[in-house]
Amino acid sequence: MAPAIHVGPEPFEPLVKAVEAAGGEIVESLEGAEAVVWAGTEDQLGALPASVKWVQLQSAGIEPWIERIRNTPDVRFTSAVGAYASQVAEHALALLLAGTRGIARYAREHSWNPQDEIVLEGSTVAIVGAGGIGRELIRMLEPHDVEIIAVTRSGRGDTLSVEQLPTVWGNADHFVICAPATTDTEHLVGAAELEQMKPHSWIVNIARGSLIDPDALADALRDGRIGGAALDVTDPEPLPDGHPLWELALITPHVANPPSSMLRDLAKRVQENVRRYVDGAELLAPVDPEQGY
Amino acid sequence: MAPAIHVGPEPFEPLVKAVEAAGGEIVESLEGAEAVVWAGTEDQLGALPASVKWVQLQSAGIEPWIERIRNTPDVRFTSAVGAYASQVAEHALALLLAGTRGIARYAREHSWNPQDEIVLEGSTVAIVGAGGIGRELIRMLEPHDVEIIAVTRSGRGDTLSVEQLPTVWGNADHFVICAPATTDTEHLVGAAELEQMKPHSWIVNIARGSLIDPDALADALRDGRIGGAALDVTDPEPLPDGHPLWELALITPHVANPPSSMLRDLAKRVQENVRRYVDGAELLAPVDPEQGY
Repeated sequence: MAPAIHVGPEPFEPLVKAVEAAGGEIVESLEGAEAVVWAGTEDQLGALPASVKWVQLQSAGIEPWIERIRNTPDVRFTSAVGAYASQVAEHALALLLAGTRGIARYAREHSWNPQDEIVLEGSTVAIVGAGGIGRELIRMLEPHDVEIIAVTRSGRGDTLSVEQLPTVWGNADHFVICAPATTDTEHLVGAAELEQMKPHSWIVNIARGSLIDPDALADALRDGRIGGAALDVTDPEPLPDGHPLWELALITPHVANPPSSMLRDLAKRVQENVRRYVDGAELLAPVDPEQGY
Repeated sequence: MAPAIHVGPEPFEPLVKAVEAAGGEIVESLEGAEAVVWAGTEDQLGALPASVKWVQLQSAGIEPWIERIRNTPDVRFTSAVGAYASQVAEHALALLLAGTRGIARYAREHSWNPQDEIVLEGSTVAIVGAGGIGRELIRMLEPHDVEIIAVTRSGRGDTLSVEQLPTVWGNADHFVICAPATTDTEHLVGAAELEQMKPHSWIVNIARGSLIDPDALADALRDGRIGGAALDVTDPEPLPDGHPLWELALITPHVANPPSSMLRDLAKRVQENVRRYVDGAELLAPVDPEQGY
């Protein structure tokens, strides 16, 4: 029998179609639903009826959900980790190039004032957190003739482990932060790490604002100790008007995964996961309540 | 015997070393030189003594040299076409991503104001002039899941010919102008071409300012008829203060090939061409006086 699946907080058409294409049956209310595809925030979703066995979330980062996930161990939660990886990696590359090539600075000028710029070619780029997004970014950097240092928690494959991370800050030219936000990764980049970077180093953050100590970053930028910072995520977020990072860094307002392409990518993920659910197969991106991602 | 080669207007060390590494003998004056490596402008170089048989120029575009080249048919001129291709292609990609991803706009803002942005993934990108730079750009776009339409003069290989160019403007999403500046390519993009583009289309120019009609472009941008323009080259160049394109477009001041990496790349080309000269082999990038590049 087709599983009864609720799509909310609104019956977004691409998601409804994805559920149906994968063999699910849409139910209009949470009551009686066996699974929920939730394209809204945590506080928009009420208490789950006991019928619900699985919730598909819309985002890759699931901090606001973690308490609920830990408190409802009988419900499986899947995140959207990996679903938007190529979009976000594309934005990370855009920020890295905009930074090194001086585009962020030139965009603010109204006078012809050429300066010597850094080229990415020949540099060493550290990918801190080589999960889905990081791996996509490594793929996009392949034709660019750069050295890659990839760091993962466990150091699997060709990557360095978090234990080796302290050696990375002084050795790479540029840094792209792609790691998940957990209590372990809070302020992963602070004053001590910034101190070791090179005067031309750019740091890009497309993960979560909490991974970089914003005060230490502002200090380093104000003193010209690093080349620059390009941030799609900030702490606090939204970045309030008048915050020093508006002047000191290149800020994009969490748009690495723009709405128009997000729904398209989420629909692909929903279709695949509903298909797996129907088949009794392993779901993509199950949330680990302990690790918090 | 080692050919006597003059490096000017100054004896730049990387170029001198490149000449010597390839088997040339450096001479301090133009008199008696058989070949000249000229890393300066046309008006810095006086009349050539009759001993000079070959001049290696430092840039890919050779408009200021064309009259001299036509008037001295006994001297071979080689340009730097291809020597900086990967640097310039990297800048072209940086501009394309900065444009489509809204980075040029966000760089000017001081307030959190997310908007829906275009992702490059899934779009069709036209490379108008798929020579050395265009081919490098195509290589860099490979991991991005975009359709490429490449246009060359003759339509060789997988490319469309200039005769088919009129079909391209309405069919691609974005355009990167990489064609050489000749009388044929002046205002290659004018009002009629801009008219056919899509409302979200970005146009990038890293070739020469003359390829785009600046007034027609300013009109299209002012009316919001295209997504935007990112220009590393302008007409006139330098773009004067107060020119409307400072507000309407993303301008970088001819920095696709920054000085620090330019000399390194030119030295590689000089070494290769001196080696070929010594061996009596065909030189890279001979200038065709008729075609003007």
